[in-house]
Amino acid sequence: MEQIIMYPIGKIFSPYTQNKGIPIQGVFGGEAVAWVELQDEYAAGLRDLDGFSHAIILYYFHESQREDIEGRPFLEQDKHGIFAIRSPHRPNHIGLSIVKIRKIEANRLYFAEVDMLDETPVLDIKPYVKYFDSREDVKSGWVDKHFENGSIPDETILK
Amino acid sequence: MEQIIMYPIGKIFSPYTQNKGIPIQGVFGGEAVAWVELQDEYAAGLRDLDGFSHAIILYYFHESQREDIEGRPFLEQDKHGIFAIRSPHRPNHIGLSIVKIRKIEANRLYFAEVDMLDETPVLDIKPYVKYFDSREDVKSGWVDKHFENGSIPDETILK
Repeated sequence: MEQIIMYPIGKIFSPYTQNKGIPIQGVFGGEAVAWVELQDEYAAGLRDLDGFSHAIILYYFHESQREDIEGRPFLEQDKHGIFAIRSPHRPNHIGLSIVKIRKIEANRLYFAEVDMLDETPVLDIKPYVKYFDSREDVKSGWVDKHFENGSIPDETILK
Repeated sequence: MEQIIMYPIGKIFSPYTQNKGIPIQGVFGGEAVAWVELQDEYAAGLRDLDGFSHAIILYYFHESQREDIEGRPFLEQDKHGIFAIRSPHRPNHIGLSIVKIRKIEANRLYFAEVDMLDETPVLDIKPYVKYFDSREDVKSGWVDKHFENGSIPDETILK
């Protein structure tokens, strides 16, 4: 099938330089702050993003060397299809994180709720729009049992 | 900067064969049902996705012929940076839709809340996990004024 060619529009500067210690998702990310540094020609694309509290960052899992069809997620030992988990080892290696916008300065978007490695290539940034992206009455499959009664699982940081 | 090469993992079969009549976002999509048809080798990747009510589909805006740095969204005439709107005419042309899962059969994922064109190439499918992807206390920038007092704007279908 036909190739699709993409280019990094910038990269992430993150305190996480290795997998150890990184949160499995940004919501578990605590106070760490990172930023996207866009190439200069894309800086004007950030205009008015500062009116949003959150952004969706799409990026390339540059450290993954393989594509699995099934995998074991961090939260449990059971195997699931790759499209039912958030593993980096997926076809096309696209990562998605919802982050909390701290500030925008020139070609830099500073954010909290960080779960990306330092130097991750960025593919796109989209505004998080509650009317489009938040859903009620959501069933979260195999994940639900790990968050029963409002609890947070122990295993939210990579070891 | 370095190229990143991707491949479609399948494509979308949608009732929308042209832009006219398509909802601007899936939440306005009504009763239309579409499906992703994955290439056979990826069918096993759908295992256990049927436990989730929603999925995130990433796809390629294959009909867009340009990359803007700023643009006018459908909801208003004001210009905003491309990373503050959801326009298809963006660097790397990656589209993101949150859809409602109807059923999964072999290599097909049937879904409602459709806002994609027929034959759209699919790049990835991720489970929508409420603990990771839903946020409270969200500010939605320039979009908020169009949804004041819980109202839905008139212009949610392309003309």
